[in-house]
Amino acid sequence: MTGIPPPVAGVSPGPASPPSFPPGLLPYGVFRPPGGRPRVGVALGREVVEAAPLLAAPDAALLAGVTLDPLLAAGPAAWARVRAALLAALADGVPGGLAHPIAEVQLGLAFTVADYVDFYSSEHHATNVGRIFRPDGPPLSPNWKHLPVGYHGRAGTVVVSGTPVARPHGLRAGPDHSPVSGPCARLDFEAEVGFVVGAGSPAGSPVRTADLDRHVFGLVLLNDWSARDIQSFETVPLGPLLGKSFATSVSAWVVPLAALEHAWVPPADQQPAPIAHLSPAGRGLDLSLEVAVNGSVVSRPCFADMYWTPAQQLAHLTSNGSPLRTGDLFGSGTVSGPGAERRGCLLELTWNGTEPLRLDGRELRWLEDGDTVTISATAPGPDGTRLWLGAVEATVTPAAADQPYAAQRGGSA
Amino acid sequence: MTGIPPPVAGVSPGPASPPSFPPGLLPYGVFRPPGGRPRVGVALGREVVEAAPLLAAPDAALLAGVTLDPLLAAGPAAWARVRAALLAALADGVPGGLAHPIAEVQLGLAFTVADYVDFYSSEHHATNVGRIFRPDGPPLSPNWKHLPVGYHGRAGTVVVSGTPVARPHGLRAGPDHSPVSGPCARLDFEAEVGFVVGAGSPAGSPVRTADLDRHVFGLVLLNDWSARDIQSFETVPLGPLLGKSFATSVSAWVVPLAALEHAWVPPADQQPAPIAHLSPAGRGLDLSLEVAVNGSVVSRPCFADMYWTPAQQLAHLTSNGSPLRTGDLFGSGTVSGPGAERRGCLLELTWNGTEPLRLDGRELRWLEDGDTVTISATAPGPDGTRLWLGAVEATVTPAAADQPYAAQRGGSA
Repeated sequence: MTGIPPPVAGVSPGPASPPSFPPGLLPYGVFRPPGGRPRVGVALGREVVEAAPLLAAPDAALLAGVTLDPLLAAGPAAWARVRAALLAALADGVPGGLAHPIAEVQLGLAFTVADYVDFYSSEHHATNVGRIFRPDGPPLSPNWKHLPVGYHGRAGTVVVSGTPVARPHGLRAGPDHSPVSGPCARLDFEAEVGFVVGAGSPAGSPVRTADLDRHVFGLVLLNDWSARDIQSFETVPLGPLLGKSFATSVSAWVVPLAALEHAWVPPADQQPAPIAHLSPAGRGLDLSLEVAVNGSVVSRPCFADMYWTPAQQLAHLTSNGSPLRTGDLFGSGTVSGPGAERRGCLLELTWNGTEPLRLDGRELRWLEDGDTVTISATAPGPDGTRLWLGAVEATVTPAAADQPYAAQRGGSA
Repeated sequence: MTGIPPPVAGVSPGPASPPSFPPGLLPYGVFRPPGGRPRVGVALGREVVEAAPLLAAPDAALLAGVTLDPLLAAGPAAWARVRAALLAALADGVPGGLAHPIAEVQLGLAFTVADYVDFYSSEHHATNVGRIFRPDGPPLSPNWKHLPVGYHGRAGTVVVSGTPVARPHGLRAGPDHSPVSGPCARLDFEAEVGFVVGAGSPAGSPVRTADLDRHVFGLVLLNDWSARDIQSFETVPLGPLLGKSFATSVSAWVVPLAALEHAWVPPADQQPAPIAHLSPAGRGLDLSLEVAVNGSVVSRPCFADMYWTPAQQLAHLTSNGSPLRTGDLFGSGTVSGPGAERRGCLLELTWNGTEPLRLDGRELRWLEDGDTVTISATAPGPDGTRLWLGAVEATVTPAAADQPYAAQRGGSA
């Protein structure tokens, strides 16, 4: 229980009542009202409003399905037109019969994930991870300041907020370094922001950093669940696979970039100056994240602390000629800041489990079965207000009992 | 031009006429005849036969679209039923009007790729790579004999055979280790076999090794194009990203596993014995690959030399509870064998460019613009025959001139 720097756990309970989506935000989601069919809606206050009936043809068709995919693919002119029409239609209140309390509907994954890439773009996070795992070497890999390091994750296991996350089985290094098979013993969250590509780009046409908002429709909050022990054993030389691919949770509400006009801030100071395809750096986003475990806040990461910007991540992804597809999702990497209270994962918050947080009378080193992790965020709005952006939340469920293998030592099968 | 072991380049010209698909193979593909619409067909001899008209309802509907996706999703009972019906319908010749010379049609990507995972399952390949890049350490990472190492690739850049592959731009380490931006200078192929998942599996239900053919429909030949210099600079700590994601080529023809009954062989001897979820090991496949550059054979890898089996790769992928989706694709990793003539990539064949092959009067260290790489394969058939399985082929085109950045040093942007 020693610890530098001191943890902040257990001091801040989460909100007592569900926060309210401000009028100008209008995040998009997919919902199923009780007894009804799935449909697209926008969140307003504590309600979701069915969207297609608010629009005229042909734009109504973009929201008449069961995902945001048609709207995403329609591109930035359509995004602006639809948003303006929805803002106008809702300016004087919600037409009768279209609103449902969010607490009473079932929320779904709002879009079809094409490829999912996860970056590693917080210098504070990468430095902490380096210090933990390579205490005698430089904390950052030699490439880190030259490009946004990232990897492809599993698109098929991106799940919507609220979906239970089962503790994965896997192989980890045992006490004498021989592998041990069994349920993950070091389950972690990673607080991230995910960016949703709407308009694709053809092969051979890299996207410039200046064109972020011509391709990215909006953002979600993202929990990059991580089985640290499984990841650690498998990761050399090709990176994480099963330590990440069991689940990635995203918020049900996709916040359009167009709603965040007051949130843009200058990017981090980048030295050395970024190479041409990462220049200009684009802008940072002043999002305030909050991570709670079982309702107790354990961290308040600031997205403005990120080193690489979303524009640079997007430009880098396509710099080799790779096309973008509607539904491509890229995560920022764990959002961590300079102070202990801004660290975005337990690996950092507990310094690899050696400095547990106090949480409701217990020590929190790693996630236990039944723990609920909630990552929420706000952004600056007009006139000094803060805009509630929603949350991604999920509860850890026990490892499946019917795995085809029992906990055992490697080589004894 | 010193070299251990001696190269085999330039000694074997490729086939003078297109090989012929044997009657019992019936690989599936998607083709567009001249002036016609895309449709599903099976290859027979040097022709493609439109498939749906050969079937009765309801199975005809599985092949009536423009991809194999409905057939893949229909599962193993449907696969067997459809294959039996096609074999019967074609036993006495091709009904009139349904056959087109393959040379005259346009072939497409036969299925929608969901998630793409690439393994690293040849011990010979992994050992050679380790010796090249870590000459003073053990060639295999400590985990290698305990699990099939792999990573997620980019599903959106899987392209069909024949699609030109543009040399990617990217960052590489310069002479003094500062980064240099520009076209890839070390472009490579990797000869692999890809396995196509048909029937998915739900989250939380790992697939046993014994159930490979309940989920995997068939295989393709796969070229995991690799920009060695870009990959090398980016890969620590999260694995390859842009060094691989510019293109992955697959053959147009998907060979059903059901057509390979004579090709199964015992798996490699695995010590230590694999952990429970990788046991029993399943079977190996005796596929003979051939890699040609500009028509000259440079390698003849044997798939029977692989260490981890496709069944173990599939079981491992799902061992953490990850679901499978129709269209999931997993690559074997570079197929390399114990001899120099069986190495599946130029990295090994030229020992990282230090021992060039002789090819048509030039030195082949890495791929040059205009080079055509062809990976073909055969498998044992009945009565000692060899079954032609098709090929994946593509030509390297020059790096795009309109990249948003010119070759330059890092930090000078």
